[in-house]
Amino acid sequence: MAAKAKHRDPIVNAAVTLFRRQGYAGTGLNDIVDASGAPKGSLYYYFPAGKTSIAVAAVEEAGRRVITTMVELASKQKSTADMMRAHARLYSGWMRKSGFRDGCPISTVLLELAPRYRDVSEAGRRVYSARLGILREKLAADGFTPARAERLAVLCVSTLQGALIQSRVERSGSAIENAAEELAIMLEASRPSPIKAGP
Amino acid sequence: MAAKAKHRDPIVNAAVTLFRRQGYAGTGLNDIVDASGAPKGSLYYYFPAGKTSIAVAAVEEAGRRVITTMVELASKQKSTADMMRAHARLYSGWMRKSGFRDGCPISTVLLELAPRYRDVSEAGRRVYSARLGILREKLAADGFTPARAERLAVLCVSTLQGALIQSRVERSGSAIENAAEELAIMLEASRPSPIKAGP
Repeated sequence: MAAKAKHRDPIVNAAVTLFRRQGYAGTGLNDIVDASGAPKGSLYYYFPAGKTSIAVAAVEEAGRRVITTMVELASKQKSTADMMRAHARLYSGWMRKSGFRDGCPISTVLLELAPRYRDVSEAGRRVYSARLGILREKLAADGFTPARAERLAVLCVSTLQGALIQSRVERSGSAIENAAEELAIMLEASRPSPIKAGP
Repeated sequence: MAAKAKHRDPIVNAAVTLFRRQGYAGTGLNDIVDASGAPKGSLYYYFPAGKTSIAVAAVEEAGRRVITTMVELASKQKSTADMMRAHARLYSGWMRKSGFRDGCPISTVLLELAPRYRDVSEAGRRVYSARLGILREKLAADGFTPARAERLAVLCVSTLQGALIQSRVERSGSAIENAAEELAIMLEASRPSPIKAGP
């Protein structure tokens, strides 16, 4: 299996990069093979079900990356507000480095294929669920009630994904940083007072 | 010119619908012609510069629609918070009606083509500028300072655009309504107290 898997990762990584830069339909199988450096046959070997199964793998891989980042941010930052600020700085830096071509690794694929393609939508749903779970936990640690933490988590994810679209259009990280900063300010202001420990 | 324009609108409207459902690259010129009911030649007549010029026209048309909606919401709703709630209800209703296929009319096209295609990015930038302007004005009327209104406007637009992606994946309007409701609650709580009139 180790030998078999040799070319799978480069193919999936190439797909993630290409899909987020030019979308799923705009990326040909040849583009993926060329960018991955894998032999052409390996693509059919690993993904016999065809291009949509590469989309599923790309959404899963991009999801793993964003989850890793968020778990790290959640453990390092003392509040959800600071987590949002730090995530925005990361995104803004990555965007700048890529000439504002990168954006969210999965938004484009999901907008192109969900809800029509069930497997892709399902992969997207799993990523959302994990992202929201991390944020819900951090928001609960901030003192928000479970009901508010649930809804605020959706707001936190939406803010970054939406702002990334504007950033691409404006070729500037300002939208991401400004949206996250205002959200952070309001989260701090709305944070319930900590419950005092008993005497 | 009236006769000439006869088929232009149906072509652009068909492009808006198809691009938001399946993206730009996933939509063929034949799909647009078929959906529009216009004779094939008219597409080349109105858009001699080719498919990206249809993308520009689609972004402009979708932009006009969202601006019209927002101007109406801004005049009817008494605060930015209520405007967000009402806009979210509209989006959520439209999404449900389309089987969660519609989403934001321009996000997909912008993610696929910006910043590579300058004309499309430019059209997107104009739409953002108009959307942000309406929100800035409403936020200023709420009492926010110009600097905060500027950044909060970005947060308001990002929230809806981001939540629409999650809604498609989950086939549910909850993400849109929840994100907008939390944003509205925090906007209301952060709204500066009205300056009292003098004695």
